[in-house]
Amino acid sequence: MSAAPELIESGFHLENADAPFLHRGLNLADMAHVLDLARRGLVPPDAERELMRLLLEADATPADQFPYDPALGEPYNSREAHFVSRIGDVAGWLHAGRPRREAVRIALRLHVRQQIAELAAEAARFASVATERSVEHVQTVMPDQTYLQQAQPSTFGHYLLSFVYPVLRDARRLVDELDEVDCSPGGAGCVNGTRLLDDRQGISDTLGFSGVIEHTRDAMWQVDGFVHVLATAASLVSTLSKLAEDLEIWSSAEFDFVDLADGFTRASVLMPQKRNPYSLSIIRGACGVLIGRISGFLAVSKSPSARSDNLIYAYGEVPRALDLALRITKLATGVVGTLRVNRDRMAEEVRRGYSQATDLAEHLVQTCDIDYRTAYLIVGKVVRAASRERIPGAAITGEMVDAAAVEHLGRPLGTTGHDLSALLDPWAIVLSRDARGGAAPQEVTRMASLTEEQAATLATTARQRLEAFSAADERLLAAARAVAFPQEET
Amino acid sequence: MSAAPELIESGFHLENADAPFLHRGLNLADMAHVLDLARRGLVPPDAERELMRLLLEADATPADQFPYDPALGEPYNSREAHFVSRIGDVAGWLHAGRPRREAVRIALRLHVRQQIAELAAEAARFASVATERSVEHVQTVMPDQTYLQQAQPSTFGHYLLSFVYPVLRDARRLVDELDEVDCSPGGAGCVNGTRLLDDRQGISDTLGFSGVIEHTRDAMWQVDGFVHVLATAASLVSTLSKLAEDLEIWSSAEFDFVDLADGFTRASVLMPQKRNPYSLSIIRGACGVLIGRISGFLAVSKSPSARSDNLIYAYGEVPRALDLALRITKLATGVVGTLRVNRDRMAEEVRRGYSQATDLAEHLVQTCDIDYRTAYLIVGKVVRAASRERIPGAAITGEMVDAAAVEHLGRPLGTTGHDLSALLDPWAIVLSRDARGGAAPQEVTRMASLTEEQAATLATTARQRLEAFSAADERLLAAARAVAFPQEET
Amino acid sequence: MSAAPELIESGFHLENADAPFLHRGLNLADMAHVLDLARRGLVPPDAERELMRLLLEADATPADQFPYDPALGEPYNSREAHFVSRIGDVAGWLHAGRPRREAVRIALRLHVRQQIAELAAEAARFASVATERSVEHVQTVMPDQTYLQQAQPSTFGHYLLSFVYPVLRDARRLVDELDEVDCSPGGAGCVNGTRLLDDRQGISDTLGFSGVIEHTRDAMWQVDGFVHVLATAASLVSTLSKLAEDLEIWSSAEFDFVDLADGFTRASVLMPQKRNPYSLSIIRGACGVLIGRISGFLAVSKSPSARSDNLIYAYGEVPRALDLALRITKLATGVVGTLRVNRDRMAEEVRRGYSQATDLAEHLVQTCDIDYRTAYLIVGKVVRAASRERIPGAAITGEMVDAAAVEHLGRPLGTTGHDLSALLDPWAIVLSRDARGGAAPQEVTRMASLTEEQAATLATTARQRLEAFSAADERLLAAARAVAFPQEET
Amino acid sequence: MSAAPELIESGFHLENADAPFLHRGLNLADMAHVLDLARRGLVPPDAERELMRLLLEADATPADQFPYDPALGEPYNSREAHFVSRIGDVAGWLHAGRPRREAVRIALRLHVRQQIAELAAEAARFASVATERSVEHVQTVMPDQTYLQQAQPSTFGHYLLSFVYPVLRDARRLVDELDEVDCSPGGAGCVNGTRLLDDRQGISDTLGFSGVIEHTRDAMWQVDGFVHVLATAASLVSTLSKLAEDLEIWSSAEFDFVDLADGFTRASVLMPQKRNPYSLSIIRGACGVLIGRISGFLAVSKSPSARSDNLIYAYGEVPRALDLALRITKLATGVVGTLRVNRDRMAEEVRRGYSQATDLAEHLVQTCDIDYRTAYLIVGKVVRAASRERIPGAAITGEMVDAAAVEHLGRPLGTTGHDLSALLDPWAIVLSRDARGGAAPQEVTRMASLTEEQAATLATTARQRLEAFSAADERLLAAARAVAFPQEET
Repeated sequence: MSAAPELIESGFHLENADAPFLHRGLNLADMAHVLDLARRGLVPPDAERELMRLLLEADATPADQFPYDPALGEPYNSREAHFVSRIGDVAGWLHAGRPRREAVRIALRLHVRQQIAELAAEAARFASVATERSVEHVQTVMPDQTYLQQAQPSTFGHYLLSFVYPVLRDARRLVDELDEVDCSPGGAGCVNGTRLLDDRQGISDTLGFSGVIEHTRDAMWQVDGFVHVLATAASLVSTLSKLAEDLEIWSSAEFDFVDLADGFTRASVLMPQKRNPYSLSIIRGACGVLIGRISGFLAVSKSPSARSDNLIYAYGEVPRALDLALRITKLATGVVGTLRVNRDRMAEEVRRGYSQATDLAEHLVQTCDIDYRTAYLIVGKVVRAASRERIPGAAITGEMVDAAAVEHLGRPLGTTGHDLSALLDPWAIVLSRDARGGAAPQEVTRMASLTEEQAATLATTARQRLEAFSAADERLLAAARAVAFPQEET
Repeated sequence: MSAAPELIESGFHLENADAPFLHRGLNLADMAHVLDLARRGLVPPDAERELMRLLLEADATPADQFPYDPALGEPYNSREAHFVSRIGDVAGWLHAGRPRREAVRIALRLHVRQQIAELAAEAARFASVATERSVEHVQTVMPDQTYLQQAQPSTFGHYLLSFVYPVLRDARRLVDELDEVDCSPGGAGCVNGTRLLDDRQGISDTLGFSGVIEHTRDAMWQVDGFVHVLATAASLVSTLSKLAEDLEIWSSAEFDFVDLADGFTRASVLMPQKRNPYSLSIIRGACGVLIGRISGFLAVSKSPSARSDNLIYAYGEVPRALDLALRITKLATGVVGTLRVNRDRMAEEVRRGYSQATDLAEHLVQTCDIDYRTAYLIVGKVVRAASRERIPGAAITGEMVDAAAVEHLGRPLGTTGHDLSALLDPWAIVLSRDARGGAAPQEVTRMASLTEEQAATLATTARQRLEAFSAADERLLAAARAVAFPQEET
Repeated sequence: MSAAPELIESGFHLENADAPFLHRGLNLADMAHVLDLARRGLVPPDAERELMRLLLEADATPADQFPYDPALGEPYNSREAHFVSRIGDVAGWLHAGRPRREAVRIALRLHVRQQIAELAAEAARFASVATERSVEHVQTVMPDQTYLQQAQPSTFGHYLLSFVYPVLRDARRLVDELDEVDCSPGGAGCVNGTRLLDDRQGISDTLGFSGVIEHTRDAMWQVDGFVHVLATAASLVSTLSKLAEDLEIWSSAEFDFVDLADGFTRASVLMPQKRNPYSLSIIRGACGVLIGRISGFLAVSKSPSARSDNLIYAYGEVPRALDLALRITKLATGVVGTLRVNRDRMAEEVRRGYSQATDLAEHLVQTCDIDYRTAYLIVGKVVRAASRERIPGAAITGEMVDAAAVEHLGRPLGTTGHDLSALLDPWAIVLSRDARGGAAPQEVTRMASLTEEQAATLATTARQRLEAFSAADERLLAAARAVAFPQEET
Repeated sequence: MSAAPELIESGFHLENADAPFLHRGLNLADMAHVLDLARRGLVPPDAERELMRLLLEADATPADQFPYDPALGEPYNSREAHFVSRIGDVAGWLHAGRPRREAVRIALRLHVRQQIAELAAEAARFASVATERSVEHVQTVMPDQTYLQQAQPSTFGHYLLSFVYPVLRDARRLVDELDEVDCSPGGAGCVNGTRLLDDRQGISDTLGFSGVIEHTRDAMWQVDGFVHVLATAASLVSTLSKLAEDLEIWSSAEFDFVDLADGFTRASVLMPQKRNPYSLSIIRGACGVLIGRISGFLAVSKSPSARSDNLIYAYGEVPRALDLALRITKLATGVVGTLRVNRDRMAEEVRRGYSQATDLAEHLVQTCDIDYRTAYLIVGKVVRAASRERIPGAAITGEMVDAAAVEHLGRPLGTTGHDLSALLDPWAIVLSRDARGGAAPQEVTRMASLTEEQAATLATTARQRLEAFSAADERLLAAARAVAFPQEET
């Protein structure tokens, strides 16, 4: 039976395009399987040695130089054909007690667990760098905005730190999902278990998994862990995209609040005057792409149970999406770490505007025995009058307030003659936000020390996992070499 | 300033359509805010009492009878207008130190935390019911399938239990996310904190939240918790959809493996002979809808930071999606709990097929000193020959194996004369799958006792959260009544 | 057989929630079916009259007052139960030759064809209004931007007109899809045709469809038309969302290029100084929601063929999505029609910047015999020097150019002494863009006259379709009344 | 200014990965631009010749051998660097009057127009092949299903033809969108037009576009055409996925209605007895992936206007998605063209079932003067009784009907003694479906001749477009060679 050209050019072509993500893991999975069979006496020693030499050779061959060939089927078939061409029927021991899909499932998990840990580590690094920049700017007064309208005086430090929290939450989610993905489906047989392999712990330990997936059918077919990893990647990059969109706006000549470091911009080829914040476009667009990846993967997984497409398409979609998320997170870290912040322009806009209005209204509530809604309406009148006469918020006087009160209530509030300048000073307002989570410098500093700690903890966890993965790989390769070249062992 | 008709018919219309989800929470949030203001002496006692009476009255009014009116703006504006119409300027105290969005954010979280806990509880119930049915069918032999082709003999119990695991994982994820959603954004002021409210713990405790969202800007604008709740809902229903698609196929006259209980089917209006498994269509379609909801919500959240649309659209999208997921999970539980399983037809198909082939090949590997690939090719020939002559798998003989071996290897394997019937008996094969996670009855029973336990634990956790929410509501209402009607307190 | 509560609370609940979209169409479809049966002599005259009276009565009853009740099944079942309760078995004639699904399919198409035509009409109105505003602003100089960086001098008229084109394309696509959706599935029987009804044209004509869907199985199950209508709605609102995002940025105090009319903004409840461009958030968020709707509907339609969920979920998803798109398009039209454009601020930013740089470089290419890349590098130096010394682009001199040339090339270009002011005048640059599609006023005016014409043509087409739909409804109701109350006919 | 490593590894890495899709088009766009500049005397003849030689050389270099290098920026930058390294400043003429983005926009359109035409051609081929197989099976009786429950007797020909219609509609939509995509954005300058190039028709003609995109800002930034092409690709593959899911079910041993040709299946590596319909999984999964691609692209395009990410991500997403759709459509054509249809099993299931029930009920309506609902209830009883006694539908007798009538109505209908066998014969029922669109052989044949014609017309249109594209390329290359090597022209 030879495959139809239409199939070679579709299914097999697609699967082979994903071989680079699986190559390493397939080699490791095969080595572990041979060791497992040998442990049970199911493969003759000579065959074991020959197989292991071949697998070590495959592992030393980069994926793009290995003879993966769609004309032979998916990657597993290419491997089989190559192995048979090299050692004949002895290659056939590899299939004992294990369907093709088990090897590939393992390879996918080995690849993705690495990616998850790397993404968590990088998210933690973003959190750490952004925290650092926040601390640097706890005194950089800035008009915080809602609807892109100036709302209240705040600081760039408080603003920036607000992105650290969701990033830390998604880093934590990644670490949580790592516990699901870093589990071994090994030894599951086709779907109902196998009569040959009676202990599934061995293969799990050999490959450095943190546990065994209990139910064999679940082990073969589960996709929910991948769904959540993709959702978390999309959520993480969505947070970075929000920041990127803000920075794009603030990089405009009209705002001029920030400048990207040159290395993160791109010159226009036509327009000599332009330096475009290209990196921000890349971050935002990646968010869109990742929204599509989680949508698509969920749509793929809408099928009956135990259908191969669920995983076949995962082999490429999941690694590619995580790779994109990782590159984008690094980019965002670079952008934030090198961002130039234009303190003067930020301060200028705070001075020009009326972001003190809420504080003035609250002051009237506290001192003039009026309810908030009344105070609000009076201050609204004050602000509109000031705006017409181009008087900035900080220069509003008690007389102006009383004038508005007379207009609205028919009586003054008695603010005439009061000096409101301390109340209306943006910096004083910032200082007053010293309750939990507020913009006051000491509060931002306090939060920053906590986020820095969380980031460090998550980074450590991720790094430890990565080191454990490497150690397991090394142990397995050493065991494989011991089988393949026993004389060298001494 | 009055709103344009186009705006009333779009934004305000949309927001008012979501008022039923927020009504209760808005009342509670307002009561808690009044208590908080009173605690600080920021609202005069008379005003406090008047406000509280009004809020209790609002809470006693069903959402669809409260004068929510798009012409007045979004629901918060309708409330304000109604309150002013009732008690005049006194209503204005409600806005002190709190933007409109804080009340609505709190209301959303109160609603959604309830939904998450209910969905987790219902997912646990599904797991529990499905576990029970699995145990009932640990001996119901069935051909498990991949690509819908018979693969290996298994049991309906082992099959069904494979759905319990992903459901439990998603239930656990829901409980994890509950910890994020069940946090108080209260006291965050506009975005940078507030000068009026210096302790954010109070409002959190009053509303029974499990904690305070630290950073005030994050508190106002975070959406990642909602993203993950929607992703988990989609993932959960995706698992149920897989089961539904399987059952739809198995309900066909051609398979005839299962029958839905009558109450879950629907008669055709045209075709007298038909009883359609309508419930399964409903489950599958809901999966598609929920994929759209998570895609859409992620797309909504692709915006600059601190943009109202992120939450405005969440007010309706998140509750509606979770409501759908809850109804569907209940439906799936009902379907599974009442499903009729046709043991005879399942057994008949196992007997007709060749799902013993893997075991035969493995037997040859173990007894005839040949590698798996060779054994596989020989058994392939045996099966094709048997199929041509309509000999079922269980009747394959040693002679047939030797004949195929001669053809493939040029020599027999010596199986002639051996009685293969015990080896080829599907039930014996099932019994042999007794390693961890396999289909053997005792192993399925062992797993079932664990999943039952996990389901019970999750159900308990969810129930305790629900009870704690109710208790907090009751405490708050009692406190509100004590303020509103002090004389009754004795 | 009575339905399980879980089914009533899921499938039947969901379907009944969509009854308002289908009620009218179900009444019309039933009337047309009765007329069709009567034409063939398949229903006794008395039964025909009784049925028709009942159907006219149903049509006079608003959907929310009709006894739709999930406990009875989906809406068709409620109708059947109601009709039987009123006229007994005579109601049973309604089902002859027609499955339930045919009536509902027709009703959906009657509803959606109306919505498509309305959306096309409204899109055309947006195009018309935006064209008008473009013409008004053909002389409003503005720095056009890429990456939100000032790129070249343009006009607000040219900018705004760029949104008219994609809107017109989507309006055209809607009209094209209308031809698919406005086709009759009537007379298709279950799926393979029917023995009772041998002419499918009659029912199509009666309901005012523009044609018959040829293949009966396709007629019952096709969804591609709905997919494309949803995709077009998402695409249309995506264009409006881009405009909304631009306007949100330009409404900031820092840009101050535009102001929304008061009726399209919303005051802050906390912050007295704020008037938020709320309408723009509503438009942008709707884009996200509609992206989810098309994703979700495509995911729903990923199923085997002839599955009810494909359409059951369409009954609500499609009408709701189109309704949202319509409201949002009207909102966007209102926003654009009433937008205040701040000519002075736009002009000020053009003057402050260097958007003339490309023209200067092109001038050097044309007059100094150097290639573009060299000219570009020289002008880049000029601009950076000017920026350092705060000399605006329009004040760049020939001397400055020569200085930069010396620096870059080691020789001057001979521009010293030349008056560059005409070349660097933004308005002169705009005037020079008089080739096809450019920003020159006469070219924008020319394009505007074409887009106005296209908008008018599309509006006329849409209106004619709407009128034809109404006329068909009226004819059918008249025919129904003639049957129901023959004596009144004189 | 050198790019940051994080940017090289993200944005530039991503853009270079898409260079293969754009390489050809960039060469052609550059050649056309040089010709255009020369036509206006804007580039010196020597420079023109040198440039053209270089561009022809680039065009002779496969994309993967051209020195595209992320370290230099996106592909356009690599080209620039390479050209400068080869011919120095002369390369700089290439940028006159044209931003980088124009060249890439053109390249994208040249690539995608080709893909659209190919996909339309292949969809037409599917329609043609499926039509042919339909005609072959106009007499292959089959139980058509709804909810996968046997509904009515039909034929495999009628069934299969129902997929041809939506495929033809999507092929038509592709051809319609081709008119939008095959338009030239050339000569648009940055965004507002250009002073150098006053005639945009020339470059359009040179590149074989069917028209010019009128408005220059629209020309640079429009994405709606790509949105609709992706939506149509998803819709098309969704139709193929429905067919694939049906065939997967029908390939099961339990149905055994069809068999895929061997070349479209895949053997199991573990299970010797299995031949898996792998192609069907590939088709279904691709549908999910494409749903993600349209969702993702819509999400990418949710941004302010004139943002680069809209197109940067399109450069890879659109070509890859269309490539996938093309491969899958070819695969589906192969599957359908070689499918083995098991007439006997289909006939056997029709005989076993009760799909005649509707016809029996309609017969009673026509002959016994009862309404349809009553007839339906009586026949329901008949069928259930027959089913209990294992009497197939075709053997139902008049006596059985009367017995049920007595039970339901209290009186017989007088069918006792009547021979119902002709009425209940599935083939006779099929023959009776001879109204428009029904399953009767002559009607299927009639429709098939129309779909064959439509498929041929669409195929011809697509082919003519493809030929015109090739011819334009050839003309442009000839013109380029004439400039580059004038002496050879004789």
